Amino acid sequence: MLDYKLLEALAAVVECGGFERAGDALGLSQSAVSQRIKALEVRLGQPVLVRAPALAPTPAGQRLLNHIQQVQLLERDLRRALPTLDSASPRLRIAVNADSLATWWAEAVGPLCREEGLLIDLVVEDQDVGLRRLRDGDVAACLCASPQPIAGARCVALGTMTYHPLATPAYRRRHFPAGPTPEAFRHAPAIVYGPHDQLQHRFLAQCGYRGAFPFHLCPSSEGFVALARAGMGYGMVPLMQAEPWVARGELASIAPGQVLEVPLYWHFWRHSGELIERLTAALGTVALR
Amino acid sequence: MLDYKLLEALAAVVECGGFERAGDALGLSQSAVSQRIKALEVRLGQPVLVRAPALAPTPAGQRLLNHIQQVQLLERDLRRALPTLDSASPRLRIAVNADSLATWWAEAVGPLCREEGLLIDLVVEDQDVGLRRLRDGDVAACLCASPQPIAGARCVALGTMTYHPLATPAYRRRHFPAGPTPEAFRHAPAIVYGPHDQLQHRFLAQCGYRGAFPFHLCPSSEGFVALARAGMGYGMVPLMQAEPWVARGELASIAPGQVLEVPLYWHFWRHSGELIERLTAALGTVALR
Repeated sequence: MLDYKLLEALAAVVECGGFERAGDALGLSQSAVSQRIKALEVRLGQPVLVRAPALAPTPAGQRLLNHIQQVQLLERDLRRALPTLDSASPRLRIAVNADSLATWWAEAVGPLCREEGLLIDLVVEDQDVGLRRLRDGDVAACLCASPQPIAGARCVALGTMTYHPLATPAYRRRHFPAGPTPEAFRHAPAIVYGPHDQLQHRFLAQCGYRGAFPFHLCPSSEGFVALARAGMGYGMVPLMQAEPWVARGELASIAPGQVLEVPLYWHFWRHSGELIERLTAALGTVALR
Repeated sequence: MLDYKLLEALAAVVECGGFERAGDALGLSQSAVSQRIKALEVRLGQPVLVRAPALAPTPAGQRLLNHIQQVQLLERDLRRALPTLDSASPRLRIAVNADSLATWWAEAVGPLCREEGLLIDLVVEDQDVGLRRLRDGDVAACLCASPQPIAGARCVALGTMTYHPLATPAYRRRHFPAGPTPEAFRHAPAIVYGPHDQLQHRFLAQCGYRGAFPFHLCPSSEGFVALARAGMGYGMVPLMQAEPWVARGELASIAPGQVLEVPLYWHFWRHSGELIERLTAALGTVALR
Protein backbone atom coordinates (compact mmCIF):
# COMPACT_ATOMS: atom_id res chain seq x y z
CA MET A 1 0.00 0.00 0.00
CA LEU A 2 1.30 3.47 -0.87
CA ASP A 3 1.74 6.09 1.81
CA TYR A 4 -1.14 8.44 0.94
CA LYS A 5 0.04 11.10 3.36
CA LEU A 6 2.99 11.65 1.01
CA LEU A 7 0.80 11.67 -2.09
CA GLU A 8 -1.66 14.04 -0.43
CA ALA A 9 1.22 16.43 0.26
CA LEU A 10 2.27 16.33 -3.37
CA ALA A 11 -1.28 17.02 -4.56
CA ALA A 12 -1.62 19.93 -2.14
CA VAL A 13 1.70 21.53 -3.21
CA VAL A 14 0.69 21.39 -6.88
CA GLU A 15 -2.89 22.50 -6.26
CA CYS A 16 -1.98 25.33 -3.90
CA GLY A 17 1.10 26.35 -5.90
CA GLY A 18 3.55 26.27 -2.99
CA PHE A 19 4.79 24.52 0.11
CA GLU A 20 3.59 27.08 2.60
CA ARG A 21 0.07 27.27 1.22
CA ALA A 22 -0.02 23.46 1.02
CA GLY A 23 0.97 23.35 4.67
CA ASP A 24 -1.89 25.70 5.56
CA ALA A 25 -4.33 23.54 3.63
CA LEU A 26 -3.17 20.36 5.34
CA GLY A 27 -2.68 21.82 8.81
CA LEU A 28 1.05 21.10 8.62
CA SER A 29 4.19 23.21 8.74
CA GLN A 30 5.94 24.09 5.53
CA SER A 31 8.90 21.96 6.59
CA ALA A 32 6.66 18.96 7.30
CA VAL A 33 5.25 19.24 3.77
CA SER A 34 8.74 19.53 2.41
CA GLN A 35 9.84 16.43 4.34
CA ARG A 36 6.93 14.45 2.94
CA ILE A 37 7.85 15.44 -0.61
CA LYS A 38 11.45 14.43 0.08
CA ALA A 39 10.33 11.10 1.53
CA LEU A 40 8.28 10.50 -1.59
CA GLU A 41 11.26 11.31 -3.82
CA VAL A 42 13.57 9.04 -1.84
CA ARG A 43 11.06 6.24 -2.10
CA LEU A 44 10.63 6.78 -5.81
CA GLY A 45 14.31 7.32 -6.54
CA GLN A 46 13.60 10.43 -8.60
CA PRO A 47 12.17 13.93 -8.21
CA VAL A 48 8.42 14.50 -8.26
CA LEU A 49 8.60 18.30 -8.51
CA VAL A 50 10.72 20.78 -10.45
CA ARG A 51 11.24 24.05 -8.56
CA ALA A 52 12.31 26.24 -11.51
CA PRO A 53 11.30 28.04 -13.63
CA ALA A 54 8.01 27.38 -11.84
CA LEU A 55 6.84 24.78 -9.37
CA ALA A 56 5.51 21.89 -11.44
CA PRO A 57 5.27 18.12 -11.29
CA THR A 58 7.84 16.00 -13.11
CA PRO A 59 6.44 13.29 -15.38
CA ALA A 60 6.72 10.82 -12.49
CA GLY A 61 5.04 13.35 -10.17
CA GLN A 62 2.23 13.80 -12.67
CA ARG A 63 1.64 10.05 -12.71
CA LEU A 64 1.31 10.06 -8.95
CA LEU A 65 -1.10 13.01 -9.15
CA ASN A 66 -3.26 11.18 -11.62
CA HIS A 67 -3.29 8.18 -9.36
CA ILE A 68 -4.32 10.14 -6.26
CA GLN A 69 -7.06 11.91 -8.20
CA GLN A 70 -8.43 8.55 -9.23
CA VAL A 71 -8.31 7.33 -5.66
CA GLN A 72 -10.14 10.50 -4.59
CA LEU A 73 -12.84 9.84 -7.17
CA LEU A 74 -13.23 6.30 -5.90
CA GLU A 75 -13.46 7.59 -2.33
CA ARG A 76 -16.17 10.00 -3.40
CA ASP A 77 -18.23 7.12 -4.76
CA LEU A 78 -17.55 5.08 -1.65
CA ARG A 79 -18.79 7.92 0.54
CA ARG A 80 -21.98 8.12 -1.45
CA ALA A 81 -22.58 4.41 -0.78
CA LEU A 82 -21.52 4.65 2.89
CA PRO A 83 -22.69 8.07 4.10
CA THR A 84 -21.38 7.53 7.62
CA LEU A 85 -17.83 7.67 6.24
CA ASP A 86 -18.31 11.28 5.28
CA SER A 87 -19.42 12.39 8.71
CA ALA A 88 -16.11 11.17 10.11
CA SER A 89 -15.22 13.12 13.22
CA PRO A 90 -12.03 15.12 13.00
CA ARG A 91 -9.15 13.52 14.84
CA LEU A 92 -6.33 15.49 16.37
CA ARG A 93 -2.95 13.93 17.09
CA ILE A 94 -1.39 15.53 20.15
CA ALA A 95 1.75 14.86 22.18
CA VAL A 96 1.12 15.24 25.93
CA ASN A 97 3.49 14.80 28.86
CA ALA A 98 2.59 11.83 31.06
CA ASP A 99 1.94 13.76 34.27
CA SER A 100 -0.57 16.12 32.63
CA LEU A 101 -2.38 13.16 31.11
CA ALA A 102 -2.48 11.48 34.52
CA THR A 103 -3.99 14.57 36.16
CA TRP A 104 -5.84 17.52 34.59
CA TRP A 105 -5.70 17.01 30.80
CA ALA A 106 -8.90 15.06 30.14
CA GLU A 107 -11.00 17.26 32.39
CA ALA A 108 -9.80 20.35 30.52
CA VAL A 109 -10.38 19.10 26.98
CA GLY A 110 -13.34 16.78 27.70
CA PRO A 111 -16.17 19.33 27.29
CA LEU A 112 -14.91 20.55 23.88
CA CYS A 113 -14.38 16.98 22.64
CA ARG A 114 -17.89 16.05 23.74
CA GLU A 115 -19.50 19.10 22.10
CA GLU A 116 -17.61 18.84 18.84
CA GLY A 117 -17.35 15.07 18.54
CA LEU A 118 -13.61 15.66 18.40
CA LEU A 119 -11.48 12.50 18.58
CA ILE A 120 -8.01 12.68 20.05
CA ASP A 121 -4.99 10.57 19.15
CA LEU A 122 -2.61 10.96 22.08
CA VAL A 123 1.12 10.38 22.05
CA VAL A 124 2.74 10.33 25.47
CA GLU A 125 6.10 12.05 25.28
CA ASP A 126 8.02 14.08 27.75
CA GLN A 127 10.00 17.16 26.90
CA ASP A 128 11.95 17.54 23.71
CA VAL A 129 10.66 14.40 22.02
CA GLY A 130 7.16 15.84 21.82
CA LEU A 131 8.48 19.07 20.31
CA ARG A 132 10.50 17.11 17.78
CA ARG A 133 7.35 15.25 16.77
CA LEU A 134 5.63 18.60 16.24
CA ARG A 135 8.53 19.87 14.14
CA ASP A 136 8.44 16.67 12.08
CA GLY A 137 4.73 17.14 11.40
CA ASP A 138 3.87 13.97 13.30
CA VAL A 139 1.53 15.73 15.75
CA ALA A 140 -0.66 18.82 15.46
CA ALA A 141 0.17 20.13 18.92
CA CYS A 142 2.39 19.38 21.87
CA LEU A 143 2.13 19.96 25.60
CA CYS A 144 5.50 19.96 27.33
CA ALA A 145 7.85 21.81 29.66
CA SER A 146 9.91 23.45 26.91
CA PRO A 147 9.32 27.18 26.34
CA GLN A 148 11.37 27.08 23.11
CA PRO A 149 9.00 28.03 20.30
CA ILE A 150 9.24 26.31 16.92
CA ALA A 151 9.29 28.38 13.73
CA GLY A 152 5.75 28.50 12.37
CA ALA A 153 4.18 27.40 15.64
CA ARG A 154 2.64 29.31 18.54
CA CYS A 155 3.67 28.66 22.14
CA VAL A 156 1.29 29.44 25.00
CA ALA A 157 2.35 29.30 28.68
CA LEU A 158 -0.21 27.38 30.77
CA GLY A 159 1.28 27.78 34.26
CA THR A 160 3.37 25.48 36.41
CA MET A 161 2.91 22.15 38.15
CA THR A 162 4.51 21.75 41.58
CA TYR A 163 6.45 18.56 42.31
CA HIS A 164 7.08 17.34 45.85
CA PRO A 165 9.56 14.60 46.94
CA LEU A 166 7.07 12.06 48.27
CA ALA A 167 7.32 8.70 50.04
CA THR A 168 5.37 6.72 52.62
CA PRO A 169 5.86 7.81 56.23
CA ALA A 170 7.41 4.37 56.97
CA TYR A 171 9.89 4.87 54.13
CA ARG A 172 10.76 8.30 55.45
CA ARG A 173 11.37 6.99 58.97
CA ARG A 174 13.58 4.21 57.63
CA HIS A 175 15.63 6.11 55.04
CA PHE A 176 15.51 9.72 56.23
CA PRO A 177 15.58 9.43 60.05
CA ALA A 178 17.69 12.62 60.25
CA GLY A 179 15.97 14.39 57.35
CA PRO A 180 17.34 14.98 53.85
CA THR A 181 21.06 14.52 54.56
CA PRO A 182 23.75 13.62 51.97
CA GLU A 183 24.20 10.29 53.75
CA ALA A 184 20.49 9.52 53.35
CA PHE A 185 20.43 10.55 49.66
CA ARG A 186 23.42 8.28 48.99
CA HIS A 187 21.48 5.17 50.12
CA ALA A 188 17.73 5.85 49.83
CA PRO A 189 16.25 4.37 46.62
CA ALA A 190 14.63 7.06 44.50
CA ILE A 191 12.12 6.62 41.66
CA VAL A 192 13.02 8.16 38.32
CA TYR A 193 10.62 8.34 35.35
CA GLY A 194 13.22 7.49 32.70
CA PRO A 195 16.79 8.08 31.61
CA HIS A 196 15.95 11.58 30.32
CA ASP A 197 14.06 12.63 33.44
CA GLN A 198 16.08 15.34 35.17
CA LEU A 199 13.64 16.14 38.01
CA GLN A 200 15.35 13.90 40.56
CA HIS A 201 18.78 15.33 39.71
CA ARG A 202 17.43 18.88 39.92
CA PHE A 203 15.85 18.15 43.28
CA LEU A 204 19.08 16.67 44.70
CA ALA A 205 21.12 19.58 43.33
CA GLN A 206 18.66 21.96 45.00
CA CYS A 207 19.30 20.10 48.27
CA GLY A 208 23.04 20.52 47.72
CA TYR A 209 23.68 16.85 46.92
CA ARG A 210 25.55 15.89 43.74
CA GLY A 211 26.70 12.32 44.35
CA ALA A 212 25.40 8.99 43.12
CA PHE A 213 22.12 7.56 44.41
CA PRO A 214 20.21 4.29 43.90
CA PHE A 215 17.00 4.46 41.88
CA HIS A 216 14.20 2.52 40.24
CA LEU A 217 13.18 3.45 36.70
CA CYS A 218 9.42 3.62 36.06
CA PRO A 219 8.18 5.24 32.83
CA SER A 220 4.51 5.48 33.90
CA SER A 221 2.93 8.24 35.99
CA GLU A 222 0.54 5.95 37.77
CA GLY A 223 3.19 3.25 38.20
CA PHE A 224 5.49 5.89 39.66
CA VAL A 225 2.98 6.75 42.40
CA ALA A 226 2.25 3.03 42.90
CA LEU A 227 5.96 2.36 43.56
CA ALA A 228 6.09 5.24 46.04
CA ARG A 229 2.92 4.01 47.78
CA ALA A 230 4.41 0.50 48.00
CA GLY A 231 7.35 1.97 49.93
CA MET A 232 9.84 1.12 47.19
CA GLY A 233 11.31 4.60 46.95
CA TYR A 234 10.73 8.35 47.07
CA GLY A 235 10.12 10.40 43.94
CA MET A 236 9.09 13.77 42.54
CA VAL A 237 5.30 13.67 42.12
CA PRO A 238 2.97 16.53 41.11
CA LEU A 239 0.91 17.48 44.16
CA MET A 240 -2.17 17.55 41.85
CA GLN A 241 -1.68 13.82 41.38
CA ALA A 242 -0.69 12.80 44.91
CA GLU A 243 -3.23 14.91 46.79
CA PRO A 244 -5.60 12.10 47.83
CA TRP A 245 -2.74 10.10 49.39
CA VAL A 246 -1.10 13.14 50.94
CA ALA A 247 -4.45 14.12 52.47
CA ARG A 248 -4.82 10.62 53.96
CA GLY A 249 -1.25 10.68 55.28
CA GLU A 250 -0.20 7.77 53.04
CA LEU A 251 2.43 9.88 51.25
CA ALA A 252 4.48 12.72 52.71
CA SER A 253 7.40 14.89 51.68
CA ILE A 254 10.87 13.68 52.65
CA ALA A 255 12.12 17.28 52.48
CA PRO A 256 9.27 19.64 53.37
CA GLY A 257 9.62 23.01 51.69
CA GLN A 258 11.76 21.62 48.88
CA VAL A 259 9.63 21.58 45.74
CA LEU A 260 10.22 21.93 42.00
CA GLU A 261 8.09 24.12 39.77
CA VAL A 262 7.72 22.72 36.27
CA PRO A 263 6.23 25.12 33.70
CA LEU A 264 4.00 23.77 30.95
CA TYR A 265 3.71 25.12 27.41
CA TRP A 266 1.23 24.37 24.64
CA HIS A 267 2.76 24.40 21.15
CA PHE A 268 0.69 24.24 17.95
CA TRP A 269 1.00 25.21 14.30
CA ARG A 270 -0.37 28.59 13.32
CA HIS A 271 -3.26 28.42 10.84
CA SER A 272 -4.33 25.04 12.25
CA GLY A 273 -7.94 26.12 12.18
CA GLU A 274 -10.62 27.11 14.62
CA LEU A 275 -10.75 23.85 16.57
CA ILE A 276 -7.17 24.19 17.81
CA GLU A 277 -7.89 27.79 18.81
CA ARG A 278 -10.83 26.62 20.92
CA LEU A 279 -8.76 23.80 22.41
CA THR A 280 -6.11 26.37 23.29
CA ALA A 281 -8.76 28.53 24.95
CA ALA A 282 -9.95 25.49 26.97
CA LEU A 283 -6.41 24.71 28.12
CA GLY A 284 -5.95 28.36 29.09
CA THR A 285 -8.68 28.05 31.72
CA VAL A 286 -6.90 25.26 33.63
CA ALA A 287 -5.68 26.17 37.11
CA LEU A 288 -2.42 24.24 37.32
CA ARG A 289 -0.92 23.69 40.76
CA MET B 1 36.32 -13.60 30.03
CA LEU B 2 34.92 -10.13 29.42
CA ASP B 3 36.54 -7.10 30.98
CA TYR B 4 33.91 -6.22 33.56
CA LYS B 5 35.53 -2.92 34.39
CA LEU B 6 34.53 -1.76 30.93
CA LEU B 7 30.99 -3.08 31.32
CA GLU B 8 30.72 -1.49 34.74
CA ALA B 9 31.70 1.85 33.21
CA LEU B 10 28.97 1.47 30.60
CA ALA B 11 26.38 0.62 33.24
CA ALA B 12 27.43 3.63 35.33
CA VAL B 13 27.27 6.06 32.39
CA VAL B 14 23.74 4.93 31.51
CA GLU B 15 22.51 4.84 35.09
CA CYS B 16 24.03 8.15 36.07
CA GLY B 17 23.12 9.81 32.78
CA GLY B 18 26.59 11.15 32.00
CA PHE B 19 30.31 10.55 31.99
CA GLU B 20 31.11 12.97 34.78
CA ARG B 21 28.49 11.59 37.16
CA ALA B 22 29.54 8.04 36.25
CA GLY B 23 33.10 9.00 37.14
CA ASP B 24 31.89 10.32 40.51
CA ALA B 25 30.00 7.10 41.17
CA LEU B 26 32.98 4.90 40.26
CA GLY B 27 35.64 7.07 41.83
CA LEU B 28 37.24 7.68 38.43
CA SER B 29 37.98 10.74 36.34
CA GLN B 30 35.62 11.57 33.50
CA SER B 31 38.37 10.83 30.99
CA ALA B 32 39.03 7.41 32.53
CA VAL B 33 35.35 6.55 32.13
CA SER B 34 35.45 7.81 28.56
CA GLN B 35 38.52 5.67 27.81
CA ARG B 36 36.79 2.58 29.15
CA ILE B 37 33.77 3.17 26.94
CA LYS B 38 36.06 3.67 23.95
CA ALA B 39 37.96 0.48 24.76
CA LEU B 40 34.67 -1.39 24.94
CA GLU B 41 33.57 0.00 21.57
CA VAL B 42 36.91 -0.86 19.95
CA ARG B 43 36.64 -4.37 21.29
CA LEU B 44 33.07 -4.74 20.10
CA GLY B 45 33.63 -3.06 16.76
CA GLN B 46 30.53 -0.89 17.19
CA PRO B 47 29.22 1.89 19.41
CA VAL B 48 27.61 1.06 22.75
CA LEU B 49 26.25 4.55 23.39
CA VAL B 50 24.56 7.20 21.29
CA ARG B 51 25.38 10.73 22.46
CA ALA B 52 22.58 12.62 20.72
CA PRO B 53 19.76 13.58 21.07
CA ALA B 54 20.35 12.15 24.56
CA LEU B 55 22.83 9.73 26.04
CA ALA B 56 21.40 6.22 25.57
CA PRO B 57 22.68 2.70 24.96
CA THR B 58 22.69 1.33 21.42
CA PRO B 59 20.99 -2.06 20.97
CA ALA B 60 24.41 -3.68 21.42
CA GLY B 61 25.00 -1.54 24.52
CA GLN B 62 21.64 -2.57 25.93
CA ARG B 63 22.57 -6.22 25.49
CA LEU B 64 25.75 -5.66 27.44
CA LEU B 65 23.77 -3.87 30.15
CA ASN B 66 21.35 -6.74 30.42
CA HIS B 67 24.26 -9.16 30.66
CA ILE B 68 25.89 -7.21 33.44
CA GLN B 69 22.58 -7.09 35.32
CA GLN B 70 22.34 -10.85 35.15
CA VAL B 71 25.92 -11.20 36.32
CA GLN B 72 25.15 -8.83 39.20
CA LEU B 73 22.19 -11.01 40.16
CA LEU B 74 24.38 -14.10 40.22
CA GLU B 75 26.98 -12.18 42.22
CA ARG B 76 24.31 -11.33 44.72
CA ASP B 77 23.61 -15.03 45.30
CA LEU B 78 27.34 -15.61 45.60
CA ARG B 79 27.67 -12.83 48.13
CA ARG B 80 25.02 -14.44 50.26
CA ALA B 81 27.13 -17.61 50.32
CA LEU B 82 30.30 -15.58 50.88
CA PRO B 83 29.19 -12.63 52.99
CA THR B 84 32.64 -11.10 53.15
CA LEU B 85 32.33 -10.03 49.52
CA ASP B 86 31.06 -6.45 49.57
CA SER B 87 27.43 -5.82 48.70
CA ALA B 88 25.83 -3.52 46.16
CA SER B 89 22.16 -3.36 45.15
CA PRO B 90 21.28 -5.39 42.06
CA ARG B 91 18.96 -3.87 39.46
CA LEU B 92 16.45 -5.84 37.44
CA ARG B 93 15.10 -4.70 34.06
CA ILE B 94 11.54 -5.91 33.57
CA ALA B 95 8.87 -5.35 30.91
CA VAL B 96 5.41 -4.92 32.46
CA ASN B 97 2.06 -4.29 30.79
CA ALA B 98 0.66 -0.84 31.56
CA ASP B 99 -2.51 -1.98 33.32
CA SER B 100 -0.65 -4.21 35.78
CA LEU B 101 1.73 -1.38 36.57
CA ALA B 102 -1.25 0.93 37.12
CA THR B 103 -2.88 -1.52 39.54
CA TRP B 104 -1.36 -4.40 41.52
CA TRP B 105 2.30 -4.66 40.42
CA ALA B 106 4.05 -2.42 42.96
CA GLU B 107 2.12 -3.82 45.90
CA ALA B 108 3.13 -7.35 44.90
CA VAL B 109 6.84 -6.73 44.42
CA GLY B 110 7.27 -3.90 46.96
CA PRO B 111 7.99 -6.03 50.06
CA LEU B 112 10.69 -8.07 48.32
CA CYS B 113 12.31 -4.94 46.84
CA ARG B 114 12.33 -3.29 50.26
CA GLU B 115 13.80 -6.33 52.03
CA GLU B 116 16.47 -7.01 49.44
CA GLY B 117 17.28 -3.48 48.40
CA LEU B 118 16.38 -4.60 44.89
CA LEU B 119 16.15 -1.81 42.29
CA ILE B 120 13.80 -2.19 39.33
CA ASP B 121 14.18 -0.77 35.83
CA LEU B 122 10.70 -0.94 34.31
CA VAL B 123 9.83 -0.93 30.63
CA VAL B 124 6.14 -0.47 29.86
CA GLU B 125 5.16 -2.70 26.95
CA ASP B 126 1.99 -4.48 26.09
CA GLN B 127 1.79 -7.92 24.61
CA ASP B 128 4.27 -9.22 22.11
CA VAL B 129 6.67 -6.30 22.30
CA GLY B 130 7.61 -7.20 25.87
CA LEU B 131 8.24 -10.81 24.89
CA ARG B 132 10.38 -9.70 21.97
CA ARG B 133 12.45 -7.60 24.37
CA LEU B 134 12.95 -10.69 26.54
CA ARG B 135 14.00 -12.74 23.53
CA ASP B 136 16.40 -9.97 22.47
CA GLY B 137 18.01 -9.97 25.88
CA ASP B 138 16.82 -6.43 26.58
CA VAL B 139 14.92 -7.35 29.75
CA ALA B 140 15.37 -10.07 32.38
CA ALA B 141 11.65 -10.83 32.67
CA CYS B 142 8.35 -9.89 31.10
CA LEU B 143 4.77 -9.71 32.33
CA CYS B 144 2.24 -9.90 29.50
CA ALA B 145 -0.87 -11.61 28.15
CA SER B 146 0.97 -14.03 25.89
CA PRO B 147 1.14 -17.66 27.05
CA GLN B 148 3.69 -18.49 24.35
CA PRO B 149 6.87 -19.58 26.13
CA ILE B 150 10.28 -18.57 24.79
CA ALA B 151 13.02 -21.16 24.41
CA GLY B 152 15.22 -21.00 27.48
CA ALA B 153 12.65 -19.09 29.52
CA ARG B 154 10.02 -20.18 32.01
CA CYS B 155 6.41 -19.04 31.74
CA VAL B 156 4.16 -18.88 34.82
CA ALA B 157 0.40 -18.21 34.63
CA LEU B 158 -0.64 -15.56 37.18
CA GLY B 159 -4.40 -15.51 36.64
CA THR B 160 -6.68 -13.16 34.72
CA MET B 161 -7.70 -9.53 34.92
CA THR B 162 -11.34 -8.72 34.13
CA TYR B 163 -12.06 -5.77 31.84
CA HIS B 164 -15.43 -3.98 31.82
CA PRO B 165 -16.70 -1.50 29.18
CA LEU B 166 -16.93 1.61 31.36
CA ALA B 167 -18.17 5.16 30.86
CA THR B 168 -19.81 7.88 32.93
CA PRO B 169 -23.56 7.46 33.53
CA ALA B 170 -24.15 10.69 31.53
CA TYR B 171 -22.17 9.29 28.61
CA ARG B 172 -24.17 6.07 28.78
CA ARG B 173 -27.49 7.95 28.74
CA ARG B 174 -26.37 10.05 25.77
CA HIS B 175 -24.73 7.39 23.60
CA PHE B 176 -26.39 4.14 24.70
CA PRO B 177 -30.00 5.15 25.45
CA ALA B 178 -31.24 1.78 24.12
CA GLY B 179 -28.30 -0.23 25.45
CA PRO B 180 -25.39 -1.70 23.46
CA THR B 181 -26.98 -1.69 19.97
CA PRO B 182 -25.07 -1.74 16.65
CA GLU B 183 -26.37 1.78 15.95
CA ALA B 184 -24.91 3.01 19.26
CA PHE B 185 -21.55 1.30 18.66
CA ARG B 186 -21.36 2.91 15.22
CA HIS B 187 -21.44 6.43 16.70
CA ALA B 188 -20.28 6.29 20.34
CA PRO B 189 -16.62 7.32 20.70
CA ALA B 190 -14.58 4.56 22.28
CA ILE B 191 -11.16 4.81 23.91
CA VAL B 192 -8.42 2.53 22.59
CA TYR B 193 -5.00 2.14 24.20
CA GLY B 194 -3.03 2.04 20.95
CA PRO B 195 -2.98 0.73 17.40
CA HIS B 196 -2.11 -2.80 18.60
CA ASP B 197 -4.74 -2.91 21.32
CA GLN B 198 -7.34 -5.53 20.39
CA LEU B 199 -9.50 -5.35 23.52
CA GLN B 200 -12.05 -2.95 22.04
CA HIS B 201 -12.37 -5.02 18.87
CA ARG B 202 -12.74 -8.22 20.88
CA PHE B 203 -15.42 -6.61 23.04
CA LEU B 204 -17.39 -5.40 20.00
CA ALA B 205 -17.10 -8.80 18.32
CA GLN B 206 -18.38 -10.40 21.52
CA CYS B 207 -21.39 -8.05 21.32
CA GLY B 208 -21.93 -9.14 17.70
CA TYR B 209 -20.77 -5.82 16.19
CA ARG B 210 -18.07 -5.83 13.50
CA GLY B 211 -18.42 -2.43 11.83
CA ALA B 212 -16.39 0.76 12.11
CA PHE B 213 -16.52 2.91 15.25
CA PRO B 214 -15.03 6.25 16.28
CA PHE B 215 -12.28 6.19 18.88
CA HIS B 216 -9.71 8.18 20.80
CA LEU B 217 -6.20 6.75 21.11
CA CYS B 218 -4.63 7.04 24.56
CA PRO B 219 -1.47 5.02 25.30
CA SER B 220 -1.56 5.54 29.09
CA SER B 221 -3.54 3.55 31.66
CA GLU B 222 -4.25 6.49 33.92
CA GLY B 223 -4.97 8.76 30.93
CA PHE B 224 -7.38 6.13 29.62
CA VAL B 225 -9.43 6.21 32.81
CA ALA B 226 -9.17 10.02 32.90
CA LEU B 227 -10.68 10.25 29.39
CA ALA B 228 -13.52 7.92 30.41
CA ARG B 229 -14.15 9.93 33.60
CA ALA B 230 -14.23 13.15 31.54
CA GLY B 231 -17.06 11.65 29.47
CA MET B 232 -14.98 11.56 26.28
CA GLY B 233 -15.68 7.92 25.52
CA TYR B 234 -16.18 4.41 26.86
CA GLY B 235 -13.37 1.88 27.10
CA MET B 236 -12.27 -1.49 28.42
CA VAL B 237 -10.84 -0.90 31.91
CA PRO B 238 -9.71 -3.51 34.46
CA LEU B 239 -12.20 -3.52 37.31
CA MET B 240 -9.21 -3.56 39.72
CA GLN B 241 -8.31 -0.12 38.41
CA ALA B 242 -11.78 1.42 38.10
CA GLU B 243 -13.21 0.12 41.36
CA PRO B 244 -13.15 3.41 43.32
CA TRP B 245 -15.10 5.21 40.58
CA VAL B 246 -17.48 2.33 39.97
CA ALA B 247 -18.20 2.18 43.71
CA ARG B 248 -18.99 5.91 43.72
CA GLY B 249 -21.19 5.59 40.65
CA GLU B 250 -18.90 7.79 38.55
CA LEU B 251 -18.20 5.01 36.05
CA ALA B 252 -20.57 2.22 34.98
CA SER B 253 -20.68 -0.53 32.39
CA ILE B 254 -22.35 0.31 29.08
CA ALA B 255 -23.06 -3.41 28.56
CA PRO B 256 -23.50 -5.09 31.96
CA GLY B 257 -22.51 -8.73 31.90
CA GLN B 258 -20.19 -8.26 28.91
CA VAL B 259 -16.61 -8.52 30.20
CA LEU B 260 -13.28 -9.68 28.83
CA GLU B 261 -10.92 -11.92 30.75
CA VAL B 262 -7.27 -11.19 30.00
CA PRO B 263 -4.79 -13.78 31.30
CA LEU B 264 -1.37 -12.68 32.51
CA TYR B 265 1.88 -14.61 32.24
CA TRP B 266 5.26 -14.03 33.81
CA HIS B 267 8.21 -14.95 31.57
CA PHE B 268 11.82 -15.08 32.79
CA TRP B 269 15.09 -16.70 31.85
CA ARG B 270 15.87 -19.97 33.57
CA HIS B 271 19.02 -19.88 35.72
CA SER B 272 18.54 -16.18 36.49
CA GLY B 273 19.27 -16.81 40.13
CA GLU B 274 17.42 -16.97 43.39
CA LEU B 275 16.08 -13.39 43.37
CA ILE B 276 13.98 -13.97 40.26
CA GLU B 277 12.63 -17.14 41.86
CA ARG B 278 11.54 -15.18 44.92
CA LEU B 279 10.05 -12.45 42.73
CA THR B 280 8.13 -15.15 40.88
CA ALA B 281 6.88 -16.52 44.18
CA ALA B 282 5.74 -13.02 45.23
CA LEU B 283 3.86 -12.54 41.95
CA GLY B 284 2.25 -15.95 42.42
CA THR B 285 0.51 -14.76 45.59
CA VAL B 286 -1.34 -11.94 43.80
CA ALA B 287 -5.10 -12.32 43.62
CA LEU B 288 -5.86 -10.90 40.19
CA ARG B 289 -9.43 -9.93 39.45
